[in-house]
Formats: sequence, C-alpha cells, structure tokens
Amino acid sequence: MRKVTTLGLLGTGVIGGGWAARALHFGIDVIAADVKPEMEEWIRGAVANAEPALQRLTSAPLPPKGTLSFTTDLKVMAQRADFIQENIPEQLPLKQRMLAEVSRHAAADVIIASSTSGLTPTDLQRDMAAPERFCVAHPFNPVYLLPLVELVGGQKTSQSTIDAAAKFFTYIGMHPLHVRREIPGHLTDRLQEALWREILHMVNDGIATTGELDESIIYGPGLRWAAMGTNLIYHLAGGESGMRHMLAQFGPCLKWPWTKLEAPELTESLIDKMVEGTQAQAAGRSIRELERLRDDYLVAIQQVLRQYNIGAGATLRSLEERLFKDASAGHALPAVESAAPMRLLDAVVRPEWVDYNRHMSDFRYGQVFGDAMEPLFRQIGVDEAYRATGRMYYTVENHIRHVGEAKMGESLYVTAQLLEADDKRLHIFQRMFRGRDDQQVATADQMYLHVDTAAAKASAADPKVRAKVEQILRAQAALSRPAEAGRAVGLGKS
Amino acid sequence: MRKVTTLGLLGTGVIGGGWAARALHFGIDVIAADVKPEMEEWIRGAVANAEPALQRLTSAPLPPKGTLSFTTDLKVMAQRADFIQENIPEQLPLKQRMLAEVSRHAAADVIIASSTSGLTPTDLQRDMAAPERFCVAHPFNPVYLLPLVELVGGQKTSQSTIDAAAKFFTYIGMHPLHVRREIPGHLTDRLQEALWREILHMVNDGIATTGELDESIIYGPGLRWAAMGTNLIYHLAGGESGMRHMLAQFGPCLKWPWTKLEAPELTESLIDKMVEGTQAQAAGRSIRELERLRDDYLVAIQQVLRQYNIGAGATLRSLEERLFKDASAGHALPAVESAAPMRLLDAVVRPEWVDYNRHMSDFRYGQVFGDAMEPLFRQIGVDEAYRATGRMYYTVENHIRHVGEAKMGESLYVTAQLLEADDKRLHIFQRMFRGRDDQQVATADQMYLHVDTAAAKASAADPKVRAKVEQILRAQAALSRPAEAGRAVGLGKS
Repeated sequence: MRKVTTLGLLGTGVIGGGWAARALHFGIDVIAADVKPEMEEWIRGAVANAEPALQRLTSAPLPPKGTLSFTTDLKVMAQRADFIQENIPEQLPLKQRMLAEVSRHAAADVIIASSTSGLTPTDLQRDMAAPERFCVAHPFNPVYLLPLVELVGGQKTSQSTIDAAAKFFTYIGMHPLHVRREIPGHLTDRLQEALWREILHMVNDGIATTGELDESIIYGPGLRWAAMGTNLIYHLAGGESGMRHMLAQFGPCLKWPWTKLEAPELTESLIDKMVEGTQAQAAGRSIRELERLRDDYLVAIQQVLRQYNIGAGATLRSLEERLFKDASAGHALPAVESAAPMRLLDAVVRPEWVDYNRHMSDFRYGQVFGDAMEPLFRQIGVDEAYRATGRMYYTVENHIRHVGEAKMGESLYVTAQLLEADDKRLHIFQRMFRGRDDQQVATADQMYLHVDTAAAKASAADPKVRAKVEQILRAQAALSRPAEAGRAVGLGKS
Repeated sequence: MRKVTTLGLLGTGVIGGGWAARALHFGIDVIAADVKPEMEEWIRGAVANAEPALQRLTSAPLPPKGTLSFTTDLKVMAQRADFIQENIPEQLPLKQRMLAEVSRHAAADVIIASSTSGLTPTDLQRDMAAPERFCVAHPFNPVYLLPLVELVGGQKTSQSTIDAAAKFFTYIGMHPLHVRREIPGHLTDRLQEALWREILHMVNDGIATTGELDESIIYGPGLRWAAMGTNLIYHLAGGESGMRHMLAQFGPCLKWPWTKLEAPELTESLIDKMVEGTQAQAAGRSIRELERLRDDYLVAIQQVLRQYNIGAGATLRSLEERLFKDASAGHALPAVESAAPMRLLDAVVRPEWVDYNRHMSDFRYGQVFGDAMEPLFRQIGVDEAYRATGRMYYTVENHIRHVGEAKMGESLYVTAQLLEADDKRLHIFQRMFRGRDDQQVATADQMYLHVDTAAAKASAADPKVRAKVEQILRAQAALSRPAEAGRAVGLGKS
C-alpha cells in the first residue's frame, strides 16, 4: 500500500469533520468531497472547533499541519487521495453505490475505508473495483480525541489492507482494534446498544429519567470504564481466584430479571473462555497489583474531574468545601500564635506526580508548597469570602532549592516561617520534609503580593488580615533567619 | 434520625471492607460484625490496603480517623451502631433473617441499609422491626473510591430514612442517587448487566475475546462515560437539535440486530420523555458548550492515563515517542548553534491548569519551564538512551519570577539562554511569553546538576554532551546576561 500523505473524505458530517481535524493536526493533507458546496464552510468550522482541544492532547513536537481542500467532485478527491475514508449516511444501497463509484476512480493501491457504525464490510464491498483494499474503519465521536477505531475486513478484504490501515490510524494517534468476525454493530456498538436499549426500556417503563440513568453510570462504573473494561473489572471483583470465582458467585444472577436481555447458558466451555480471556488480560499481574492500578487511576481521574466540577469531581469538590469549613470551625488550621514554624500540610507523593524514576517531578514541589499556603491563607482570613471581594495574594517570586528526593507514595509535610511583611507583601520561607525520616527534601523562598484583582494592581491588605500577619511575625520573631533565604542562583564563579 | 458517629457493619467481605475504609477515613468509628472471628484480621487488612489510595483522594483537612472494632456478636454491633450497613451474601432468605434479627437489637432511630446489588427493599424489610428505617444503599467496588450509592426505599420505607441516609453518605464523600421505583438490579446494575450479557453472548458465539471486548470500551465510549452518560452523549451526537434529531436518525437502528436485546417501540411518548430528560440535563447549556466540556475532560483524562501508561494513555504515550523520534530525525529540535536564546516549546494553558480566576496556577509555570527543557536536553544528547546509562541532569534550584498573567487557552512559548556551565552544572535562564502579544509572563533562573543515578551523586557529563553544551555557550557568548538572573528574594529592607 502507498504512503499516506493525503486523506480523501467522502462525506463531511460530524464524523468527516472529526477525521479531517485529526488527520490535519498530525500532518496529513485532507481533501474532502461533498456534493453540497456549502459543506466546505461547514467542515472548515468543524476543524477550527476541534483545534483547541487537539492542541492540548500532546505537547510533543508535531509535523507541520496538513492543508485542507474541498471539492464537490468525488472523482477529483479519489484521484488525489492516498487513503479514502467514507462517512455518508447509514444506508446500505447508497453506501454500496458511492463506494463502487469512488473505487473506479482511485488507484488499486489506495485503501478505501468506511466509517459505518454497524453495516458489514462484505455487503459494502460487493460492487467495488479492487474490493480487497476495502475495510470498515469505525471511529467514535469526537473522532479527533477518542483513539478507538474498529477495523473489520469483509470476505474479499486482504490482510495487507487491514495491516496498512492499522498503520495509518496508529500514525494519526489512534488505537486500531481488529474485529476478527463480521457482525452487525461490530463490537463496541453492540455493547453500547445493549446498554442503550435497556435505558430506553427504563425510561419507557417510567422507572427513571435520562438524568438519573446517566448518574447511575458516571458516579460509578463509568469511572472504571475509562481504563478497564467489564471483563477485567469483574476479574478483580472475583478476588484472588478472579473471573472463575466471580462467575461461580454471580452466575445465578444471569437467570434473574436484572435486564430484559436474556443471558446465554453459562456452560463449562463459556466459563473457560471467560477465564482464559481474563487471564490473558491480567498478563501475569496479581489481583492486588491490578487493584492498585485501578485505584490509582480512579483517584487521578477524580482529581481531573474536580477541576471541571463535573460528575464525581463535583462530588469531591463539595466534600472538600465541607471539610475546609469543618476544619475552620474545629480550629484544625495552623495556629497564628505559634512560636515555631507552622506545620501546614500533610501530603502524599501521588503516582501521577513522579517521573519514570519514581521520583517526584520538579514542578510538583511547587504544587505542594502552593497547596501548603492554602491553610495559612485561610488562617489569616484570606478565604473564599475575602477573595470574593476582589482581593488576594499573588505569588511574585518562588525560589525552590532541591536538597533531597521524594519517592512515589512517600508522605511529605511542609513548615512555614514568615520572614518579613508589609502592607502589601509577605516574604515566606517554607521547608518540605519526608514523613518517614523527617529528612528535608526542598526549601521555598517566596514573595507574595496583595492585589486588587479588578484594578489588577498591588493594594494594601485588609487591616484584619494585617493584624493576623503581625501576630504571626511577633510569634515567630525569635526564630533565626534561614541561611537558605535570600540567596541567588549561580555557579559562584561569575 | 440520630447523628452518626459509629457505623455498624453486618458482614465483612470486599464490600464491607470498602465501607469500613471509607467511613474510618472520614472520621466515623466502625464496628464490624461477622460470625467468623478470622474476618477481623481480614477487614483490618482491607482497610490498610485501601488507605494509600484514599489518602490521595483529597488534601483537604480531615477529621481524626475513626477507630475500627470487631465483634462476632451481631447484638453488640446493633446496640453500638448509629447506622447499620448489611453486606452479607446475595440470598434473599438469609438477608431477610439477618436483617430481622439485627432490627430487633437496634434502636428504632438507627437506619439499617442493605448493600444488595439487585434484591428489592420491600422483600428485604418484610420481617424487620421498625421497617420504615430500612432502605437499600447499593455501593460500587471499590466502595472507598467510587462515589455512587443507589438509595432505594421499599413500601414501608419512610422519606425521612432516605433523606437521613443521603445525608450520611454525602458526609462520607458519596453521591447518593435516589432510585424512585423498586426494580430488580436497581438502575446501575440493569445497565451493567445488559452490557455484560451481550459480552457473554459474543464470547460464547466466538466473535471476540474478553480482551478485545474490553478494548472496544476503554479506548472509546468508556472515556466518555467517566463524566457523561449515554443520554447526554447521544444528545450531543444529535447536533444542534440534540436528542430529537438523534432519535430520528438512529431510531431505525433499534430494529436492527445490533444486540440480542430487543428495543421498546419508539413511540411519540417515549421520544418526548427522552427529549425532556436530556433537555433537563443540558440545563440551558448549548450543544457547543457541552461539546467543549466533553472535549476538555476527554483530553484531561487521557493526560492522566498517560502517566499510568494504561488504555488511551498508553496510545498517547507511544504516539509521543514516535513524534519525538520524528522530530529528532527531521531536525525540528532547537539548533545548538543559534546565537539567539533558543525557542524551546509552544504550549497552551490547559483548563485544568487554571485557578477559579482562569489564571494559570503558579506551579504550572514550573511545569511549562520543565517541559521546555525536554527538547533542549534531547538536543545535547540527554535522551532515553543516555538516561538508560544511569546518567541525567537533576534540577537543584529554580527561581521563578512572575511578571505577567497567562489565562486559560492562551498560547505560551519559552526561550532559553545558557549562562554558565561546567563539567557537572548548567546554569540556564528561561523566559516565558504569551503567544498572542509576545508579552513576558515569567522568568526562571535554574541550576541543573549532572548525576550518576546509581551512585546517587554528582558526576561529570559525557564528553559528547559537554561538547554540545560548549557549542551552545559559544553560540550565545555575545548575549548579555539577563538582569533578572542571580537575584535573591526579599523585601529589600533587611
């Protein structure tokens, strides 16, 4: 098969637009063909809309973006493309006719693939010239972000077509899944459709609303499904003996009316297939190891969703608001009248914070030092209510010195000493320690500036805040100034 | 209902252990009852195993951890608990008998809830004393991390029981979902079960392996399901006219053999319910707005999974390796012989990087400066192969000065000037600019130390690396030293 530098699109709906955006982003030229000339503007808009998210997918260096062209002439597209992807409406006779036509204009070594959700390749390739270069390549919306593409060959499809298509889709950042047997709906849509039809029954029977049914997934199994499928998850649910135990325990439920879909008979042969399949997936990893991986990603995904205040992240965020409120009421925040450096935060080095060496990445030290300021700010009265008045402290300088290492899973704590302050500024020195041996791992020499956020300039802190700051300064007056504070970066030779 | 300070557990399997871990972590005492005395050790182990992940769920201040006690005497547990959660095997007569017994020992204002996956509350509360304080509270594994709990009342359950149970579960960080109608499997397990039975059919029919079926979810719809359910996702798939358009377009598929589950008739009344439901979920947000939210979380989740090299994150990671390789081969890395500061990185301020004010958080500046070093290190020969020999540069100091602001979605770039170097050290000065107006937003004054990672001490860089470093020093020799380099943090008055 030929090297793909130009992708031809037959049809330009949501799916066609998604293909265009993904291919262009990874350096492939795109020529889109649609009988309606107004679709040129449409697809350019779709590509532009996809760009902000695509730009953030990776910060690795990208080849120059591809260029997009448009034609109403299918033949022009077919003659210029190195790979053709069809995305027209889901009607078999229409797809058969158009695929046959495009196949007569495209050279025989140009792969032609269909985005069909459920039609089978043998039916689709029936009237094509050189049908061996045809396959189904079924993507998922949004095509520019979801990596999955199902590849299905028909009776006349060659293995080299599947291999070359897989190579192309991998090049543009996707995960090709070879579906080895033709079946309506391929794999993914059969699973989605079973769930969808059960939803329709429940709404139809007045059991629940669409919103309740969506909640029933996103706060629970949906979080797991982001990285482990039902089979591996059920393997974990079986404890040390995995899927076999799970089937023994929940096998009887298959006869219960838990869905309107009847289950197959749980024969010994089916049990063996399920057990062998999940053993292969576990790939020698113990249940405990897989549980740890599952727990790690479940925590990390909830952290991300928290930033967007969506689903389980919204639950976490409101929990945290309540915890901070309770802590303030219970005086669990650091005491401003303490003569020692205030102990501000206990944290754990998260697995997503470490490099390939399992050491905490440099910038995460900055994050922990920053998180540690939160209870201190709350204690001097700089909380949500204060910030809502348009006033806050900004970091203007932060000089971090790394003097030790923190490894994955280790606990950390931070202490702080207020060195100097005036109406607008706080000069704070923090130390970070490992919990297990009280070894110092980093120091931070920081300057904060009080700002009026609306005017976007420095302003004096509220007198009440100032009073608390003075209280800390007085309490810590006897502490000696850290030797590391106020020092400069340099080799000491210039 | 009474204030809950002690949670009683009836049964201590995987689910009981999960409840114990979650409750203890959020400051609730737990008394676990199991007829088998060996389960005491088991549940203590389960709690210990859950702790590392739970510790990372939030860094908000927590109340003191609860204490765990164990008894083989159900009566002791029932008399000490303020809230009782039953987690015994899924057998109706057994559950009925045990719930009845525990209800006779517990005061009438103690809520008794069952973790049952699929049995219905009216059946379960049949023989209980004060059955109005009973409900189903169905959690999901791992109970200590997944927020979902389905609350289902039976015919005799009071509304105040549901309300008080919801309050308690919210307190321990969960999302209570009130299931308004009793039905076997409640909501979640009906949806999961439909998908599961379709999987069993496909494995049974030899269509695909368990691994292929899991892939069919985790690289596609599973990523979406982490924060939006099928209904809202299909609403988005319908374009500007949402669910109504989607049903018009895909309605016919409901008659197709895409799953072994037959769909209900798509009547006008069902269409209306689906449309009204999803309109309520959209809550006034446009399709475009929801698409942006979906894209944001899809990108962010893939970033997280990349850290764990799992699912879509593994796809992203291997894509990036290829992109870096191509960039090196294509000489897209910064030129070491350039006389100007090297332009190192183009980045975009991700939505998950900003604070409530939509400004990039302080520590993310450190991340961008760090990311910018990657192409520079690769250019001087410090790449995977070099690191595999046990040598690398560690950051020892980083002094960041904030001089401007970067807002969500803004593009950024970083330039670097090598100020000084010796065998072991690199003193590098970076500047970060906003792409839109070339305004400087931050500077970083950094010292890197070359280390032998096995010996964990400073070591001389490889002569080839040194040569490249010298080449940069020579090329940049004419550049003046930045005024901001080598300065200290301070108010200037001490």
